[in-house]
Amino acid sequence: MAFFYNLSTMTKQELTDQIKKKSSYLCVGLDSDPDKIPPHLKNEKQPLLTFNKAIIDATQDLCVAYKPNTAFYEAMGPEGWEILQETIAYIPDEHLVIADAKRGDIGNTCKQYAKAFFEQLDADAITVAPYMGADSVTPFLEYEDRWVILLAATSNPSAADFEFLSLEKGGVLYEQVLKTAKLWAGPEQLMFVVGATRPEVLKFIRSQMPDYFFLIPGVGAQGGSLAEVSEAALTSEGGILVNSSRGIIYAGDGKDFDKAAREAAKKIQSEMHQYLDKFV
Amino acid sequence: MAFFYNLSTMTKQELTDQIKKKSSYLCVGLDSDPDKIPPHLKNEKQPLLTFNKAIIDATQDLCVAYKPNTAFYEAMGPEGWEILQETIAYIPDEHLVIADAKRGDIGNTCKQYAKAFFEQLDADAITVAPYMGADSVTPFLEYEDRWVILLAATSNPSAADFEFLSLEKGGVLYEQVLKTAKLWAGPEQLMFVVGATRPEVLKFIRSQMPDYFFLIPGVGAQGGSLAEVSEAALTSEGGILVNSSRGIIYAGDGKDFDKAAREAAKKIQSEMHQYLDKFV
Repeated sequence: MAFFYNLSTMTKQELTDQIKKKSSYLCVGLDSDPDKIPPHLKNEKQPLLTFNKAIIDATQDLCVAYKPNTAFYEAMGPEGWEILQETIAYIPDEHLVIADAKRGDIGNTCKQYAKAFFEQLDADAITVAPYMGADSVTPFLEYEDRWVILLAATSNPSAADFEFLSLEKGGVLYEQVLKTAKLWAGPEQLMFVVGATRPEVLKFIRSQMPDYFFLIPGVGAQGGSLAEVSEAALTSEGGILVNSSRGIIYAGDGKDFDKAAREAAKKIQSEMHQYLDKFV
Repeated sequence: MAFFYNLSTMTKQELTDQIKKKSSYLCVGLDSDPDKIPPHLKNEKQPLLTFNKAIIDATQDLCVAYKPNTAFYEAMGPEGWEILQETIAYIPDEHLVIADAKRGDIGNTCKQYAKAFFEQLDADAITVAPYMGADSVTPFLEYEDRWVILLAATSNPSAADFEFLSLEKGGVLYEQVLKTAKLWAGPEQLMFVVGATRPEVLKFIRSQMPDYFFLIPGVGAQGGSLAEVSEAALTSEGGILVNSSRGIIYAGDGKDFDKAAREAAKKIQSEMHQYLDKFV
């Protein structure tokens, strides 16, 4: 199988090295919305790309990952897809680029999604939904130097509708997702999405999965606590990426929005520095 | 809430009328792959768009719906998104346009996906994944004249990994998805994806959900039988859309590929005509 894409993605060891070097396990979520960016940018040729580049410039030494959320770019039509591509190309190599796409389909279709995200967009990682089972996930894993980040226990209130249903054989659905997915790939290629809003769940999942990285959304606007999350799930390798989107990228809406974003990121990174000393 | 999009989508009654008028419940899946289209088209300015338009011209009187699969367009980068947009715009108004996107995320993000598919692309329907529960589905339902088609029991082999897990409270996961989703929307706005590859499951689901439309993939390349599916799930309103993608669009690869596609679609439609007489 020949793939024509850039082979320089990030290994687990390299991610851990970056976390230690920067004293940060921050992932900045690029949920960039044309209606929410500072008004003065609207005169630019490509307001959203200018916004993203400024956010990246202002935060890149404070975070180890960026997570563009594909929905926000798709909502802009074809131009949005171009901005997504240029944003990903702009992110420095030492950052993990996570396409937050939550795709999942039959094998034949997932091969196309893998091509879209790993070849066309050159993301290092993609978030994937587990509902359809193995053959909806394994086509992504064929790209051995890329990451799959599988939804397990998500941060939203209605995660309880299905993810927390008790199974006849014991445990709940998200636990079965973890158990089954462990058979598909090891912690060098697979991570899990575990929301910040239920720290007791995070703690339990960490006890079951000591070696896997977790991508943790839900701190900030969704109400999760960084301290609780860090205590529950940090490992000696770091082992977590905590995402903040709105709290950082919309920290300010004036001409100094980038400085405001930096301050918001710095505040989180400083906390993370403490927790790395305290909990690891 | 003001939406700036075309309000002329299709009601359930209008879909039923089209099924009766055309004696067809065929959905043509536009899983259009630049590597698989006839070689002579590659000299065209926009080979894939030319291909899609020819397929639509050749099949439009034989089918009631088209289902572009977003993965194939995303794999082409920004240009693919443009082709998807132009393809949807080209589909005649009397067809249901289903964006097979299988999206699903937190509410804030799903609002953006809804904007992408219902406003930017002007699709009538979108396929949605249920894993994250109510708040990952309801933002799509806020567009009251559009359809959500929720994954229930899919056609792929590994659907069994999670969808068929037995729950402590009785039933299996996909049954709970159906029961819960019924509370979110009625059969005027919600359909379910039920694969053709397990006709006994289809029969059971029809007995539980007499009034909802099902989108049924898996006939053809995936091995499902049109006769079994039709017997199991047709209703007096039609009640099903049976999708065929590869079997129709790649029926030929010569200069007469459109005629070959028409013949393949005609063969299915003729069978459907019989089943509408026999089972309804």
